[in-house]
Amino acid sequence: MQQQITILAPGLLGASVALAARDREQTKRIHIWARRPETRLSLKNEPWCDAVFSTPEEACHDSDLIVICSPVETIVPIVERIAPALKASAIVTDVGSVKSEICRFSHDLMPAKTFFVGSHPMAGSEKSGHAHARADLFDGRTCFVTPIEEITDGEATEKVVAFWMGLGAEVATVNPEKHDEIVAHISHLPHVLASLLCSHLHLQDPQWSHFAGGGLRDTTRIAGGSPTLWREILKQNRNEVLRSVRQFQDELEAFHAALANEDFFAVANFLERGKEYQNRLRPR
Amino acid sequence: MQQQITILAPGLLGASVALAARDREQTKRIHIWARRPETRLSLKNEPWCDAVFSTPEEACHDSDLIVICSPVETIVPIVERIAPALKASAIVTDVGSVKSEICRFSHDLMPAKTFFVGSHPMAGSEKSGHAHARADLFDGRTCFVTPIEEITDGEATEKVVAFWMGLGAEVATVNPEKHDEIVAHISHLPHVLASLLCSHLHLQDPQWSHFAGGGLRDTTRIAGGSPTLWREILKQNRNEVLRSVRQFQDELEAFHAALANEDFFAVANFLERGKEYQNRLRPR
Repeated sequence: MQQQITILAPGLLGASVALAARDREQTKRIHIWARRPETRLSLKNEPWCDAVFSTPEEACHDSDLIVICSPVETIVPIVERIAPALKASAIVTDVGSVKSEICRFSHDLMPAKTFFVGSHPMAGSEKSGHAHARADLFDGRTCFVTPIEEITDGEATEKVVAFWMGLGAEVATVNPEKHDEIVAHISHLPHVLASLLCSHLHLQDPQWSHFAGGGLRDTTRIAGGSPTLWREILKQNRNEVLRSVRQFQDELEAFHAALANEDFFAVANFLERGKEYQNRLRPR
Repeated sequence: MQQQITILAPGLLGASVALAARDREQTKRIHIWARRPETRLSLKNEPWCDAVFSTPEEACHDSDLIVICSPVETIVPIVERIAPALKASAIVTDVGSVKSEICRFSHDLMPAKTFFVGSHPMAGSEKSGHAHARADLFDGRTCFVTPIEEITDGEATEKVVAFWMGLGAEVATVNPEKHDEIVAHISHLPHVLASLLCSHLHLQDPQWSHFAGGGLRDTTRIAGGSPTLWREILKQNRNEVLRSVRQFQDELEAFHAALANEDFFAVANFLERGKEYQNRLRPR
């Protein structure tokens, strides 16, 4: 158990971290910083919030673990801002969807005897805001923890792993570059495809949306996520996303050729391999 | 209300038609034919089944409306087989996902004073089999009815429209070619993308499936559908599917170029147009 944790910028994810930490008794005190005064006021009555501060530096004072939950492009600037305010042995982590840049830059910004260990819980929703927070958001979900090999402190990494396990997550430890490769394929590419399918259909005939069944709605649900957040995620993981899109384009071209050539054996192969993989996703 | 309807090949869709027709009192009698003897035996105790026959011809005897619910490639052969057994004024429809070939060929096979009017309810599931049938499967869902312009009998079309409305569906009447164009974009392309995303991920590292969140599972749910059924759907709607895939490839290439060129304004535009369309799908 931590003595005191700080959540910076509690939206859906940050507030869920706080809720889960309180519910599962992972910390004694929870300090919060939110950028907007109106958010700070509304948080004062939340049971997962012991004190609200108007600056991130104050919110981090004397905390053992700081979890930065802001959009990816703001994480490094926040680390830079709080670094001088950290107590010795403090650990900083985040929940950003891309890790290489964040982990490298943040590591370099940390004062002596303080540690940055990146995290990325594979949980969330196309909904946003602390009002949608859930104590069980991380239950059984993967949380990546991304120490930089031979650089990030082993003990600090262990503490971050233990924290996420304490919130119910299944932790997978990988280096930041490997993380970014994996999520480009299993998260960013699916988001791009869902968005582009919708943007393609919008260009066809928007009225056809009335005819669509539940299949299309499910297939494109994630395209309802914030365009601003996702633009920044795609920006930070640009190289890996470009690679995954290119590989998918090859797959799509091969499928097009198979169908154009009436090679229905090959068409069936695509469908069968797809079904086999999809079935693996079920039991989670 | 019909006096007697016949459901040929009741899987998920056919059994749901029967259940809904019974529940909503759309017919007095329901006759069933199933290909497998073991299925026929198991159906005898279903409340939505008044009589089970071992040949489609017998099952159609004296019926006012026949609904063919078998896979797309078997519909025309079944029409050919039952045509001589139909009573005068009998109407035959189907639930196939592709309509041009089925409607043209079936129309030509119909004896005088009998009618073929194609249907395609946009309902279903990656599950199959009559055990998953639901009386509310068509509730508020689109059902396409696809008369051939200036050929299909107007009164027969009205009766088929009324039947689906009676089951709770919202009917959209379009000609078979337009239908095939629409579903290529809103149903077959999404299926292809879900299958290819899974097949792409399978080729990367199948272990990554453990890390995936709910987003990937939802996005690819439809890829769990039967490869055999879908191979035949893609085969019958090959030209329109090829066209929709080609157009999607252009969209994907434009996105790749925008991201490669760091044109994040364009990247955000794709995401925003996608979100706008996705939001239209919500309320249904």
